[in-house]
Amino acid sequence: MTTHQDVPARSAPGTPSEREQQVLDRIERARRRRAKVKEERITLAHGSGGKATQTLIEAIFLEAFRNPLLEPLEDAAELTMNGTRLALTTDSFVVSPLFFPGGNIGDLAINGTVNDLAVSGATPRFLTAGFILEEGFPVADLTRIVDSMRAAAEAAGVSVVTGDTKVVQRGKADGCYINTAGVGLIEYPGTLGVATARPGDAVLVSGPIGEHGVTVLLARGELDIEADLVSDTAPVHGLVAELLASTSGVRAMRDATRGGVATILNEVARAADVAVVVDEDAVPVGTEVRGASELLGIDPLYVACEGRIVVIVDGAEADTALAALRRHPLGEQAAVIGRIKEDPPGLVLLNTVFGGTRICDLLVGDPLPRIC
Amino acid sequence: MTTHQDVPARSAPGTPSEREQQVLDRIERARRRRAKVKEERITLAHGSGGKATQTLIEAIFLEAFRNPLLEPLEDAAELTMNGTRLALTTDSFVVSPLFFPGGNIGDLAINGTVNDLAVSGATPRFLTAGFILEEGFPVADLTRIVDSMRAAAEAAGVSVVTGDTKVVQRGKADGCYINTAGVGLIEYPGTLGVATARPGDAVLVSGPIGEHGVTVLLARGELDIEADLVSDTAPVHGLVAELLASTSGVRAMRDATRGGVATILNEVARAADVAVVVDEDAVPVGTEVRGASELLGIDPLYVACEGRIVVIVDGAEADTALAALRRHPLGEQAAVIGRIKEDPPGLVLLNTVFGGTRICDLLVGDPLPRIC
Repeated sequence: MTTHQDVPARSAPGTPSEREQQVLDRIERARRRRAKVKEERITLAHGSGGKATQTLIEAIFLEAFRNPLLEPLEDAAELTMNGTRLALTTDSFVVSPLFFPGGNIGDLAINGTVNDLAVSGATPRFLTAGFILEEGFPVADLTRIVDSMRAAAEAAGVSVVTGDTKVVQRGKADGCYINTAGVGLIEYPGTLGVATARPGDAVLVSGPIGEHGVTVLLARGELDIEADLVSDTAPVHGLVAELLASTSGVRAMRDATRGGVATILNEVARAADVAVVVDEDAVPVGTEVRGASELLGIDPLYVACEGRIVVIVDGAEADTALAALRRHPLGEQAAVIGRIKEDPPGLVLLNTVFGGTRICDLLVGDPLPRIC
Repeated sequence: MTTHQDVPARSAPGTPSEREQQVLDRIERARRRRAKVKEERITLAHGSGGKATQTLIEAIFLEAFRNPLLEPLEDAAELTMNGTRLALTTDSFVVSPLFFPGGNIGDLAINGTVNDLAVSGATPRFLTAGFILEEGFPVADLTRIVDSMRAAAEAAGVSVVTGDTKVVQRGKADGCYINTAGVGLIEYPGTLGVATARPGDAVLVSGPIGEHGVTVLLARGELDIEADLVSDTAPVHGLVAELLASTSGVRAMRDATRGGVATILNEVARAADVAVVVDEDAVPVGTEVRGASELLGIDPLYVACEGRIVVIVDGAEADTALAALRRHPLGEQAAVIGRIKEDPPGLVLLNTVFGGTRICDLLVGDPLPRIC
């Protein structure tokens, strides 16, 4: 069995180690083989974060824009400009409804981009904001959304420095869509990325999962389910700083948004060509989320969070990392939920509470459209 | 009369001269006085780039996000990160139809952001791309759009390094909306910005105006007008580089998109508290645009271009700047169209071809929605 001691030293930023290069090559070959969009028309599944999204991204976007900065398909791209290491990221937000318990599209748009920068090891600094508004949208709602953005930006220590507003005719949008892009400063000396996960590593989550997704779903009011739930939307930059300061063993972090924790773990398994083995009963899930999920027939592992991170860390550093997460208010219920193993490469296995093991694959459809 | 010799030396980046500070203070007071959105609901005019857009931006966005980087409301914000000067910008594209003679939403989305970086004096480098797709959108159309983005990015020397895809239900978008954000490197030593325009400066445009807007309008097929027109969509970074290399007298550049040249000139007049006096017969307008505009009852000065820039330059350097623009293929028909004067401050005056003078104000409504 490979332990953390056997693993070669981390390579300098930008120059992959031999193992990393082998992994990258293998992914590349797999991509070229698999990626082809079979559908003639875009479906909601193409926006789910699951299999269809991945195929769309690889077959169309990656194929066209192919470059070494885009290729890792991480949450943020790492740029070096005049010797300064920067992270750049973008996200569009189309959540429905626009307002839900615990937040609205505005703070979601700020936190989402702040979090993509934070999990890439960057200190979030500057954001852009692009609004697409539907004719007839109440100005009072826009003001409320923008006020939430201001508060979220203040809480995360970022400035919105440039923006854009477009208006489309009635029936050509759904009230308000927001895009944010963000730039952060990378001062962390190591290389982070899901492709660097290796056997022996531990898998952690920073708190109970699925709260954002279930909250939004219930806020639509179409289901006759009541639950005392609020979205977990929050900026994770402080939590990440606490973690990175405690150990140099962090391989990768991701915020578990669209597609939930299971989707992130599949990306790890695939990018690093390793197995991810998760103990179902170690995964923190709140009572309300568990209850609502059972009624709805969905698996919390696939439900979006907006303030939770998945961490892959050197197995020997798991306890240190867990303690660091738990020291932060957002990480009080953090848990080690699994391990990275060698076999079967590319798969996520779930040891279920009933004692069985099942494959936890990428979703094919989209049970929860427009959750973020 | 103030001439260029009387003007104090340009101040260092970031520290406004006394005159600049006075101007900024005056604008600030004016903003606080004026900006209030009177409408209860968003109208198409809020997206026109005219008066309603300006009020919306000042009353809601600027009010909430207020910070020194956002405040100048230039096309891109200037950031300094670890001593590196960067420009950051964003734009959403909602053009209808998605495909039009000379381009489509894809190259428009690349060129638009490349141009916002270029006119801020930055070398465009890295772009993000966020897609909002409507369920049912043809994958073949998406592929064609993304291919155009690839070609436009190559032509402009930029890389798309990160992206995002969302899908919304049928009837909740109009096929495809794209947001791009961009980062560029500022190496130009001076301070550019419309607030630095001063009496004696010359006003140039880099080519015939209004071609993009009229092309898109006719491509909708609702009007019984035929014209042999193509959009002027193009990346202006090469043109800008040629200009900046030829003279240090450039005060400001803007790409004349939504709202056209007239809107840019109003921003100059307002930001610098000067008069902009334009000779109507000096403004280059192609025969097809002139003819179509007359039939449609619109003024080409307010019609969007996507590959034309407005330049404010020290009056003594006007000929040098004009020659530099004309040396570049995109600037062959560049022209000096007016001058900056002291009075009446804040206004754009047009010396008409009939020998009269009229005020050329910001538009109140939006005669051309969704042109970009």
